[in-house]
Amino acid sequence: MARIRLFRTIDEMQSSSLQWKREGLRVGFVPTMGALHEGHLSLVDMVRPHCDRLVVSVFVNPTQFGPQEDFNRYPRDIDEDLRLLEEGQADAVFAPEIEEIYPKDYATYVEVERLSSVYEGAVRPGHFRGVCTIVAKLFNIVQPDVAAFGQKDAQQVAVLRRMTRDLHFPIQFLVGPTVRESDGLAMSSRNAYLTNEQRSKATVLFRALKAAEACILAGERNADKVREAMRYVFAEVPEFKPDYGDMVSPESFEQGTEMRGEVLLIVAGRIGPVRLIDNLPVSVEP
Amino acid sequence: MARIRLFRTIDEMQSSSLQWKREGLRVGFVPTMGALHEGHLSLVDMVRPHCDRLVVSVFVNPTQFGPQEDFNRYPRDIDEDLRLLEEGQADAVFAPEIEEIYPKDYATYVEVERLSSVYEGAVRPGHFRGVCTIVAKLFNIVQPDVAAFGQKDAQQVAVLRRMTRDLHFPIQFLVGPTVRESDGLAMSSRNAYLTNEQRSKATVLFRALKAAEACILAGERNADKVREAMRYVFAEVPEFKPDYGDMVSPESFEQGTEMRGEVLLIVAGRIGPVRLIDNLPVSVEP
Repeated sequence: MARIRLFRTIDEMQSSSLQWKREGLRVGFVPTMGALHEGHLSLVDMVRPHCDRLVVSVFVNPTQFGPQEDFNRYPRDIDEDLRLLEEGQADAVFAPEIEEIYPKDYATYVEVERLSSVYEGAVRPGHFRGVCTIVAKLFNIVQPDVAAFGQKDAQQVAVLRRMTRDLHFPIQFLVGPTVRESDGLAMSSRNAYLTNEQRSKATVLFRALKAAEACILAGERNADKVREAMRYVFAEVPEFKPDYGDMVSPESFEQGTEMRGEVLLIVAGRIGPVRLIDNLPVSVEP
Repeated sequence: MARIRLFRTIDEMQSSSLQWKREGLRVGFVPTMGALHEGHLSLVDMVRPHCDRLVVSVFVNPTQFGPQEDFNRYPRDIDEDLRLLEEGQADAVFAPEIEEIYPKDYATYVEVERLSSVYEGAVRPGHFRGVCTIVAKLFNIVQPDVAAFGQKDAQQVAVLRRMTRDLHFPIQFLVGPTVRESDGLAMSSRNAYLTNEQRSKATVLFRALKAAEACILAGERNADKVREAMRYVFAEVPEFKPDYGDMVSPESFEQGTEMRGEVLLIVAGRIGPVRLIDNLPVSVEP
């Protein structure tokens, strides 16, 4: 097994990528915040057939965390991440220090309007601005031909897809399905925060999504009724403090009243101090 | 003389550039709003030795004009621009329609904080956000290895240099000196708006800059006195309505009180309905 390369500086990473591209090699990219789990590794597997060199970034991006959020306690384990990525046959890991990415006089931000201010954007002001900024930076550093993102963060996918298109990055945009634990809980680095008891309650998000999906599959076409079904499931777990449970368009995150084509069920809320999100795409048969 | 290529769509331009790069050719780029004059052509001359394929964009970018500004009457003459660029040995012109660059659901913006909100940014709110957004888009479409900008728009140079660095575009950033008419007026597509009488008054900007420079060269080290010298020249032409006349750091556009190293003298204002800007870099001897 070839030893994975670890890049710590922008210059090293960018010059390697530019060199690969001059050699006619296709570069694949999976941006992560580390604390890797099967969800991340499924994205690595997804990109591998589309590229000749596969880069994974590991960077806990401060600009996408609010002042009261979990930036400091977000799990970090670069050695374990490297081990998993070496097994997963990534070629390189880009893991810069914060000062490398955001020097003291840093001043440039990328923002997608409208889509960034609803749902996760409303609960976490500035979050998607931070996400867009770091991903635009990483795209220019890593110079990928193809990049993969997890459906788990559905609104992030919609925002970044829009940014990639609006700014004309010549990058193929892949989305990998949400990977779940056996009881349905979506894999997330933040699940590590949950106590055993909270962990058992955390399935409420997936159960709410499945209940809403069942309503649609059973023929319910009244959007309010579908939303109501989620709230009934939420109410079964008083420890869950929902931020929202809704049905939206997967591209615009506008609240749909017409139910046809692809719709997206989205839920988010807190269990104790831990904030969790989940979603489920549903095809509505005419 | 090889016939210049005219690209109207993002796809055509981007796939040509990506193909050139796969062939190992270096791409040079001069973004313009058209109505080309010797200032633009000097940038073409400046980039040519640094590249194998030279692209000039001609696009009057609506997002950098305020609602009360001159977007509609800004001079446009693509046939004359093409003729000049063919003479100037550019290889390709990218001249897209507005809807190609900003489709109806367009939502992504790039912004440089602080630097974008002073001087031109204060007089023209949103201007530099529009400039950064279009240049980031053009960088991704044209994929240049080297790009040139005119010193005439000194604050734009500072903002775009910061954006290029902050977002890690792998692009060599060249700045060409301001090209002037024989009486010192900086060349600008907007000079075409001036009546003969206004044209003769318009030298007030350059004369104010030269008066301030003369003060510094004569040994004046009190920044307020240097600014005062500009105001004396302004006062000689009551038709000139100054927005500012100042001395700043050329990178940060912070008002300098310490005079050493490189300083930048900047002036802006209106003559009748026409807004003009100019600047002069000065090396302060210790």
